[in-house]
Amino acid sequence: MERVTAPPLSPTDRSRVRRHRDRQRDDRAELHAVLDEALVAHLGLVVDGEPAVLPTLHARIGETLYLHGSSGAASLRGGEPVCVTVTLVDGLVYARRWFTHSANYRSAVVRGQARRVTDPDEHLAALRAFVAQIAPGQEDYAEPPTRKELAATAVIALDLTEASVKARTGGPGDGDAVAAGDHRWAGVVALETRVAGVTTCPALPADTPVPAHVPRTA
Amino acid sequence: MERVTAPPLSPTDRSRVRRHRDRQRDDRAELHAVLDEALVAHLGLVVDGEPAVLPTLHARIGETLYLHGSSGAASLRGGEPVCVTVTLVDGLVYARRWFTHSANYRSAVVRGQARRVTDPDEHLAALRAFVAQIAPGQEDYAEPPTRKELAATAVIALDLTEASVKARTGGPGDGDAVAAGDHRWAGVVALETRVAGVTTCPALPADTPVPAHVPRTA
Repeated sequence: MERVTAPPLSPTDRSRVRRHRDRQRDDRAELHAVLDEALVAHLGLVVDGEPAVLPTLHARIGETLYLHGSSGAASLRGGEPVCVTVTLVDGLVYARRWFTHSANYRSAVVRGQARRVTDPDEHLAALRAFVAQIAPGQEDYAEPPTRKELAATAVIALDLTEASVKARTGGPGDGDAVAAGDHRWAGVVALETRVAGVTTCPALPADTPVPAHVPRTA
Repeated sequence: MERVTAPPLSPTDRSRVRRHRDRQRDDRAELHAVLDEALVAHLGLVVDGEPAVLPTLHARIGETLYLHGSSGAASLRGGEPVCVTVTLVDGLVYARRWFTHSANYRSAVVRGQARRVTDPDEHLAALRAFVAQIAPGQEDYAEPPTRKELAATAVIALDLTEASVKARTGGPGDGDAVAAGDHRWAGVVALETRVAGVTTCPALPADTPVPAHVPRTA
């Protein structure tokens, strides 16, 4: 489903990064990577003229971003302008000054018009992608939806046309303080999301083997 | 600064949880906990009638949420309606059916009118709180801002008046499948954010001791 020759990111005026232009990334692969790694997206809507931001499960297939209708996405009928933002915090930047503290992160912003998915094949493919996004392997191990379950799960699609990626990497920006005689420690604390524990459903025998595709503690 | 007797959460009609009302939490301490634990907030604005969602550093002092103006928050002059959403993904819920897969999470939604912070004491307190939020201990170890740095950092405040917290906890909702003869594994993969590594600023001697307040790998 992945396009072989995806075009580079071509932000429109409003999706162009305004602050810290050096943090703008133009690589479509980087957009994909951010969307694919994140476990949650934040969906922005305008409701009665005011902003609303809802956490939403998402998944990407090729150049389309899908949003799971268990959140406010279910209220969308299609055609509404939306903004979906996905952020990964990769590290914390400890500096010599409050002012130069920062976070290393990658964030993707996708804007466009919401499209309600109605095609049954696309609908099923999106639900499969949602499962694979949060629990890879389960899309084959677990039972696909019944027709009723499919009808009960609204899915919103958004083309990855108007999208931008911003990232900060690297150490603190005030390294010149060292030459000036400031020897306080500074650096980066890298972060990662890890498995803290795996709990078997209490309805099952406790010794039910955990399948190999389920992640486990390191 | 913490109020001793904070009122319980009293959502207005639009901030009340509409879907999965059983997931609504009414405890103000839970709102505080979500805001205090998260490393990033998502700020929703209306720009030219369309939604925009920007990742933003945040910090809470008492019943006020502060947003760091290094993001789009800097474009706010005050008075604009905003929606700030903070989400923590606590676990992945592996179920027997695609349909019953889910995520355990806690999310806070705060709505209101942005207020630009102009009082110097409040401004400094907010910047201190930003540092303490992402790098606790650094607010004392690192150098406070100069007057120029202070002026260069816009801060937006939002009262925690119109706020709601939603959470999902526990195992998969389809445990009844076991009695019906389905013995496939199901359960919860709990997640946590951990330190993946600590890197000293390359401008420093490599053997510069890392202060005790800096988190390290387990």
